[in-house]
Amino acid sequence: MRFTLSMRMEFDGGDDLISGNATRRDFLRKMSVAASAAAITGAASSQPLRQREIKNWDASADVVIVGAGAAGIAAAIEARRYRVKALVLEKFDVAGGTSSLSGGVCYMGGGTPLQQALGFADSTENMYNYMVAAAGIHAPRDRIQAYCEGSQEQFDWLVANGVRYAQKFSAEKEVSRADASLYYSGCEKVFPYRDNARPAPRGHLPPTDDLTGGRSLMRALLTSAANLGVALTTNVSVERLVQAGDGAVIGVEVIDNGERRRIRARNGVVLAAGGFIHNPSMLQRYAPELNRCSAPWGRAGDLGMGIRMGMSVGANALRMNQGFVILPLYPPEDALKGIVVNLNGQRFVPEDAYYGLMGYEIAYRQDGRAFLIIDATTDYAPQDYRFKLAAHADSIAALEAALKLPTESLQRTVDYYNRFAQAGQDPLYQKSPHYIAPLIKPPFKAYDLDLTRAFCPVVTVGGLHTNLNSQVIHVEGDIIPGLYAAGRTAASTVLARYIGSGMSIGEALFAGRRAGAHAAQIKR
Amino acid sequence: MRFTLSMRMEFDGGDDLISGNATRRDFLRKMSVAASAAAITGAASSQPLRQREIKNWDASADVVIVGAGAAGIAAAIEARRYRVKALVLEKFDVAGGTSSLSGGVCYMGGGTPLQQALGFADSTENMYNYMVAAAGIHAPRDRIQAYCEGSQEQFDWLVANGVRYAQKFSAEKEVSRADASLYYSGCEKVFPYRDNARPAPRGHLPPTDDLTGGRSLMRALLTSAANLGVALTTNVSVERLVQAGDGAVIGVEVIDNGERRRIRARNGVVLAAGGFIHNPSMLQRYAPELNRCSAPWGRAGDLGMGIRMGMSVGANALRMNQGFVILPLYPPEDALKGIVVNLNGQRFVPEDAYYGLMGYEIAYRQDGRAFLIIDATTDYAPQDYRFKLAAHADSIAALEAALKLPTESLQRTVDYYNRFAQAGQDPLYQKSPHYIAPLIKPPFKAYDLDLTRAFCPVVTVGGLHTNLNSQVIHVEGDIIPGLYAAGRTAASTVLARYIGSGMSIGEALFAGRRAGAHAAQIKR
Repeated sequence: MRFTLSMRMEFDGGDDLISGNATRRDFLRKMSVAASAAAITGAASSQPLRQREIKNWDASADVVIVGAGAAGIAAAIEARRYRVKALVLEKFDVAGGTSSLSGGVCYMGGGTPLQQALGFADSTENMYNYMVAAAGIHAPRDRIQAYCEGSQEQFDWLVANGVRYAQKFSAEKEVSRADASLYYSGCEKVFPYRDNARPAPRGHLPPTDDLTGGRSLMRALLTSAANLGVALTTNVSVERLVQAGDGAVIGVEVIDNGERRRIRARNGVVLAAGGFIHNPSMLQRYAPELNRCSAPWGRAGDLGMGIRMGMSVGANALRMNQGFVILPLYPPEDALKGIVVNLNGQRFVPEDAYYGLMGYEIAYRQDGRAFLIIDATTDYAPQDYRFKLAAHADSIAALEAALKLPTESLQRTVDYYNRFAQAGQDPLYQKSPHYIAPLIKPPFKAYDLDLTRAFCPVVTVGGLHTNLNSQVIHVEGDIIPGLYAAGRTAASTVLARYIGSGMSIGEALFAGRRAGAHAAQIKR
Repeated sequence: MRFTLSMRMEFDGGDDLISGNATRRDFLRKMSVAASAAAITGAASSQPLRQREIKNWDASADVVIVGAGAAGIAAAIEARRYRVKALVLEKFDVAGGTSSLSGGVCYMGGGTPLQQALGFADSTENMYNYMVAAAGIHAPRDRIQAYCEGSQEQFDWLVANGVRYAQKFSAEKEVSRADASLYYSGCEKVFPYRDNARPAPRGHLPPTDDLTGGRSLMRALLTSAANLGVALTTNVSVERLVQAGDGAVIGVEVIDNGERRRIRARNGVVLAAGGFIHNPSMLQRYAPELNRCSAPWGRAGDLGMGIRMGMSVGANALRMNQGFVILPLYPPEDALKGIVVNLNGQRFVPEDAYYGLMGYEIAYRQDGRAFLIIDATTDYAPQDYRFKLAAHADSIAALEAALKLPTESLQRTVDYYNRFAQAGQDPLYQKSPHYIAPLIKPPFKAYDLDLTRAFCPVVTVGGLHTNLNSQVIHVEGDIIPGLYAAGRTAASTVLARYIGSGMSIGEALFAGRRAGAHAAQIKR
């Protein structure tokens, strides 16, 4: 049984920018497939389907890919390089995944052509040193090493697949200009990370006039996939894996137009179905720190299906408590002239840290609570939906009292900060002198950074344990034959201590490509 | 096929205090069992054994319990109340588990007879309020509620099974007197928890002259189990679960004396095999924060086998990153007159916090690093193996420099602390006045609380997701029929934010009893 449907895509300009195959509702029934479906099993969905329960398959492909985001499409493109049949199954009626909603930043370095063209020196080792330092104790060093070694190739791959970059650098902490494609997207210039490696900008993004780089990126990749003969179908929900007697994954059971169908995966199944940020019960169970954040972020399909299907066949899952927490103090960067304090009035992070590191510190180490303190010299008036004014006062003492901070706590913190700020210094966190100014001019203001109220986009980063070929690892440590995972469905170098914008897409592409290439070549 | 071997126990006075059945090496072969074992399967250990692969069983029981620690023995005792066959399989040659190595504290309250006899008022609601506050955001409220409601019954159960308590209270933070059985074992009197509930002592322990209450406790329970007809065998390693076609767990495969055997569990299998603190690869993968701590604690069998066997059949695992980190500043309590600071010279915890909370803060929120600062008025000289002197100096400024803390950071912290300490106050953390004294008399000393070097016993607390009957829950949310988990094999109310000494044994008994009772009564 061969699957021969080719992909059709339609683009529109709306929010759901990438429409899927218009004829997809009839997809499986239109295929040259035994129309008489096997009796639909009544078994609980938690049990993987066993091969012996299947009389015949409704369709087949060499590599079956669950999810049409960056990871899934990258897997499909790579699989097609080896001329095998690659079938992408997307649950919703649009392809592109969460990546298409993003800024489209991809974290790359080690001396990419764009870095070189713009005069920034970098090396694989330098990139590795920064990433390991920024990632902290959970850093998967072997994976970071492989990611860095493959970074230039990944840049070339993106360009070969139609992604365009402008030869322009932006010095802003978040790119707000249409014509720039390279910037410092992490903590490269922030203490203490700037001491671990020579800072180099590694955030690469397609130039866009409205920060919709993700749309450009995914449009290019989807077009390339279509040209390469990738089969994509939308509105098909993958429900269960099909497992052979030896534990190998040999296919999937899907629901298409209300009917259960079984699709044989001759070489393997790639789970690229996103994370679980929109599954409140999983979120509360694994990562209550994320469940209290105000803005779960990602496509509505981020329900953890891919992770759970993997775990149902004994796959290991790692870092399920971790998520990427964005606390967007900037832009504008003037906010960083203030100080951020906890409920004891203490500073706890350099204020010019990447907003993902700021979010991590507040979410995981400060019980989700903090304040931004500024004085009247700072030109900062965040939109009300972002941060609300918690208090304002004519003295720090009065502000401290209004915020119910411990007696003298904020006063002493500000006193210490001001003493050295006069000289452009910050002994405690060595904030960049660019953002250092004493807090002396009343009125003083405190903005509430409580993550339940502040604008705080958050995604999960925990997922299935995989090796460097993106093969899924069983809890006992052996490979589950035929099963791959990539993107947010897999645990990766994307951690709660977020290295920098572009890591999530960068990893999705990296792991997706490896999954597709490995599955395409494997002998079964 | 009935299992009829009765338990024999031998006690000795050595470290491995509770020897198992002396004849256990021949256990399975001595049973009235088909001696001709089925051909031993060569399948990878990661796959559960399927019912259809089994020609015949080598033995059977109604409830098969993996592990002879507090959880397993409690399960067995409860199962015997319903007159079903309960078989406990212990991997090592001694029973008692990690509980027998502990102080034997059990966290109980709500008005136990001992609390009442010693004049301490408590209630279920009061106990619940404290526990929820101390546990923080990961608190499983329904489970805490059930635990509190069952606490008095658990006390009665312990007494009925031969555990003795002395009618004496100790005001020390760690019981060091032989004749006391009740003390404040958590943060009940520590800010801010003392404001959430009226403090009541809930640490119940058998009186012993050498802090070996765990030995007394387990000796009593093992004796009771033997009297009740529980079958216990040692040196039998459970390797795999046996699963029916519908996913139900119906038995185990063991290795006994080098041979694989299959034991049918007519009603259910209880996994009570401890955590994974002695499995460095699991520890590094799930909980690197624990892997760097100096003293992994527990029986050598804490290799995660129970958790992995559960996950192999699709069970969910929760809080796998969490562990109980003990940083034993006290005794003596004089140490608490000092202050504990992080690498920025800031205080971050009330110094009189329970040492499990202190350990949590350092391990998870301070990257495993801190210092204890004392002055010459404090009579504190910890053994060299516990904490090493990091620096000493005649001024705080010199101490700060010696510790390489940021300029003026420690000086300002001490200045703030001293200013209010004069009046017995601590606005920042509201440490108990009993431990407040200004740090003014040189020489000043700093002890290194780096968890890689300081004496820091640590155990894992993450494990299988279970319901209130201790039934194991699949990642898809349904119950896995026939499978139970208790003790450190299960995720429970025992969290990295450790509520107080005695929670681990308390939970092991609570969940073990529920597992045994439910499995004994279930109709299969």
